Amino acid sequence: MAADPKAVAKAFTDWYYAAFAANRASLAGVYRDISMLSFEGTDHVGTSAIVAKLQSLAFQQIQFKVLSLDAQPSNPQLGSILICVTGQLIPEGENKPLFFSQTFQLIPEGGSFWVYNDVFRLNYG
Amino acid sequence: MAADPKAVAKAFTDWYYAAFAANRASLAGVYRDISMLSFEGTDHVGTSAIVAKLQSLAFQQIQFKVLSLDAQPSNPQLGSILICVTGQLIPEGENKPLFFSQTFQLIPEGGSFWVYNDVFRLNYG
Repeated sequence: MAADPKAVAKAFTDWYYAAFAANRASLAGVYRDISMLSFEGTDHVGTSAIVAKLQSLAFQQIQFKVLSLDAQPSNPQLGSILICVTGQLIPEGENKPLFFSQTFQLIPEGGSFWVYNDVFRLNYG
Repeated sequence: MAADPKAVAKAFTDWYYAAFAANRASLAGVYRDISMLSFEGTDHVGTSAIVAKLQSLAFQQIQFKVLSLDAQPSNPQLGSILICVTGQLIPEGENKPLFFSQTFQLIPEGGSFWVYNDVFRLNYG
């Protein structure tokens, strides 16, 4: 039975942003060597490069607030899922939230999912 | 030879937003009966429903400005492409731009591409 995309999207993003805030190294488990991250226009491929990029971000503490969450099946044969997030983030030492958009494609594997595509952009006002 | 995702993304979005501004009915050609549009959280499936939704939007004239454009292969075997856009739009009669995010997945077919996934959100500041 195919997983419900919206339920997977909610569970995944709840976990992802909590893990990002708590311990960015713990995100390694959802990436693979063929995973791709485009972060503010720079491209990173593979678990090590992706986690190194996320750990290199200057702030040590950050809060995320998801404002919208959309999900669609991205390939009915594979059971993969496209997830689109818009939200706010507040790095430590900042008092004004920054708006961001993030898109993931999740691939099912062994009852769970891993991230093949990850595209992150701040939305400047 | 697989198409370069960034070149496809640029050509597609140049065409898409110009066609949207000029004649929304002309967008029908890039959707199929299994295409999906999530527009501000409401879901529409198939060419007719998607184009009807786009044509139902109240404004008759609109300008788009793409601020960021990212692209990744979404399935190397298929040659499909994930495109993430952030930008501004200005409907007629408004003088303040609205920020938006839009994600597409394009599927190759006969030397061109069609839209399987389309997710649109305004980003409220």
